[in-house]
Amino acid sequence: MTVLEEMGARAKAAARVLASAGRQKEVALKAAAQALLEHRAELLSANEEDCRAGAENGMGKSLLDRLRLTETRIQDMAKAVIEVAEAPDPIGRVLSGESRPNGLRIEKVTVPLGVIGIIYEARPNVTSDAAALCVKAGNAVILRGGKEAFRSNRAVVKVLREAVAASGLPADCVQLVEDTSRASSAELMGLTEYLDVLIPRGGAGLIRSVKENSRVPVIETGVGNCHVYVDAAADLDMAADIIFNAKTSRPSVCNAIETVLVHRDAAEKALPKIQARLQEKQVELRGCERALQILPDVKAACEEDWATEYLDYILAVKVVDSLDQALEHIARYSSGHSECIVTESYSAAERFLQEVDSAAVYVNASTRFTDGGEFGLGAEIGISTQKLHARGPMGLQQLTTNKFLIRGSGQVR
Amino acid sequence: MTVLEEMGARAKAAARVLASAGRQKEVALKAAAQALLEHRAELLSANEEDCRAGAENGMGKSLLDRLRLTETRIQDMAKAVIEVAEAPDPIGRVLSGESRPNGLRIEKVTVPLGVIGIIYEARPNVTSDAAALCVKAGNAVILRGGKEAFRSNRAVVKVLREAVAASGLPADCVQLVEDTSRASSAELMGLTEYLDVLIPRGGAGLIRSVKENSRVPVIETGVGNCHVYVDAAADLDMAADIIFNAKTSRPSVCNAIETVLVHRDAAEKALPKIQARLQEKQVELRGCERALQILPDVKAACEEDWATEYLDYILAVKVVDSLDQALEHIARYSSGHSECIVTESYSAAERFLQEVDSAAVYVNASTRFTDGGEFGLGAEIGISTQKLHARGPMGLQQLTTNKFLIRGSGQVR
Repeated sequence: MTVLEEMGARAKAAARVLASAGRQKEVALKAAAQALLEHRAELLSANEEDCRAGAENGMGKSLLDRLRLTETRIQDMAKAVIEVAEAPDPIGRVLSGESRPNGLRIEKVTVPLGVIGIIYEARPNVTSDAAALCVKAGNAVILRGGKEAFRSNRAVVKVLREAVAASGLPADCVQLVEDTSRASSAELMGLTEYLDVLIPRGGAGLIRSVKENSRVPVIETGVGNCHVYVDAAADLDMAADIIFNAKTSRPSVCNAIETVLVHRDAAEKALPKIQARLQEKQVELRGCERALQILPDVKAACEEDWATEYLDYILAVKVVDSLDQALEHIARYSSGHSECIVTESYSAAERFLQEVDSAAVYVNASTRFTDGGEFGLGAEIGISTQKLHARGPMGLQQLTTNKFLIRGSGQVR
Repeated sequence: MTVLEEMGARAKAAARVLASAGRQKEVALKAAAQALLEHRAELLSANEEDCRAGAENGMGKSLLDRLRLTETRIQDMAKAVIEVAEAPDPIGRVLSGESRPNGLRIEKVTVPLGVIGIIYEARPNVTSDAAALCVKAGNAVILRGGKEAFRSNRAVVKVLREAVAASGLPADCVQLVEDTSRASSAELMGLTEYLDVLIPRGGAGLIRSVKENSRVPVIETGVGNCHVYVDAAADLDMAADIIFNAKTSRPSVCNAIETVLVHRDAAEKALPKIQARLQEKQVELRGCERALQILPDVKAACEEDWATEYLDYILAVKVVDSLDQALEHIARYSSGHSECIVTESYSAAERFLQEVDSAAVYVNASTRFTDGGEFGLGAEIGISTQKLHARGPMGLQQLTTNKFLIRGSGQVR
């Protein structure tokens, strides 16, 4: 057996215990949150080493910022774990049930998925967030974080494992892959005997690679080429506010927008207004030919711009002839995450809601709301942009599956 | 573009129309059912060619029987299509919804998956069953049936397409792959741009191959290495009845059992009773060492027997020391389809229900009930033995996904 196969086997055994753990999961996770706070000196010192190595290797400023732990960030990590701990148990809920004419009583109940693999990049808080969500939903988790954050992740996982074990659950509910080479990712993607699902969290490159190569079922998260469409009947001030918020409140996240489509009848007035608003944050616009006629100082967009998730202060702008053309553009380029129409027209709004095939479709609100907490669903492990199993914010409920329980008295068919 | 890519693009366009088709889907499917009856002469003659070719190529008797269409079978196909047509529309149901403190109104609604690929083997009725289920759930379908049934499938699909088109929906809601070579399966498994999900229906070999090779998300169906465990506290007559039914009422289907586990305290009395009952149908037993001590005339089972889905009048029998040992055996060898405990012990029953990790877990009833119709869920496209998206009988509801609709009045975050 390879190291990963052994981890897989241990995770499977731990998952069998976790599946009927009930209340104990809450106790263990609260202990884990407490332990994160108590061991913050160790976590900070391990993280300091990661950050120093990162700086020496020329890691960029924004990446370094994501990597860095502080007292406050550790408090936030602990708080997030407690929130998950205190959430209602997603396991053992009866989703439906009936008595059949032959006397069989059939129930569909929620059960854990089993063993979940998470492949992620530089943020150490993902380690505790993902572990807490998986364990609360009764799953063992195998974490494979990025090389840059390895010392931090190892310190966090050590603390979590000790706390979980002290609470009487198997330490192997949470495991970290120590090999952060490409080989370990590749092996995880083939570990079908042990992993029930693999969730990549990170940039588009990571997600594409996992999706292309994994034989373990994958849940795709977090690629957001999101659109706002400003309809002919839009309130243009509202449109400018929504676009400003959706582009600039946090450009690096998946629910930020990347392209604005503007109906030709609104373009003359809307584009200068949008441009003026976005200039507050020095957003670079890239426009189609017709947009350039109205905004001559703007750079021309090329085909690639429509398909790009900038995750930056850049926004593509296109003038369209009709709602139909907007719908076609979105169908062609969207990653299926979040799209918004700004309009006062009832029928345009309803058509947009009906016909846009994305996880979240908005009328007159910022796409930045696509988030488990904002949707009232609690903490999330990511935003699924795929259609199978989970679509949109993936919280505790999406980390479960179901089984049918059938109670009989000797029935045969 | 290859032929399959072109089919994929046409399916995608058809799916966009189907997504908002509503009542028209019912009309189209009823017309399709009617058309199957009206064109039964053509269907029978196409099928006759397939059967003749099959017989010439030395096709086995049971396979030939599956392939053959008769007047009655065509009537059954039409009836199944009408049943699906008349089922409640699974699309546009509001699964949950709430108003958020900021005034956003959020709804989670069901929408079609999009384009579904089905790879299947010799039964022509799968063609109309699968097409009806996919279309009713708003999905376009690309069918890739077995070579043996090609003429039959082509005739069925021609009739369905004409009827669908005459009802005003795109004919490309239903398409059949004309190339039945391995190459077309392989290409389908890579058609990620067009297919949202691929469902293999057939033997274990087909399903394994699709699972191993597909980059399109797969729903695994229908591999059933199912168990009955006869507990120390079992009613032995009930146990014999259930085992007889679960093994012999239709041995070729996935919810038939393949292994019986018997608690050592019950074995002495239970095994002869079970054997006597199964002899009515000449079932061949293969026993572990301890079973052979009680049933000396029985063949010895080898390791492979525990893992085999016989789909035949063969049953493996093993004596276990305890419920724990039964649970371990099932965890190790089961395909996660259906398992049953026969017992009068409340705690043994509840532990079995809780700890067996299969799609359907029974107390005191035949595993043969694992079926959409028997569960009151309507027609099914297969029994999912995987954990993601759908587990157990997959009906119309499992052929949908969801999206979030968010109605605002200018909210930003």
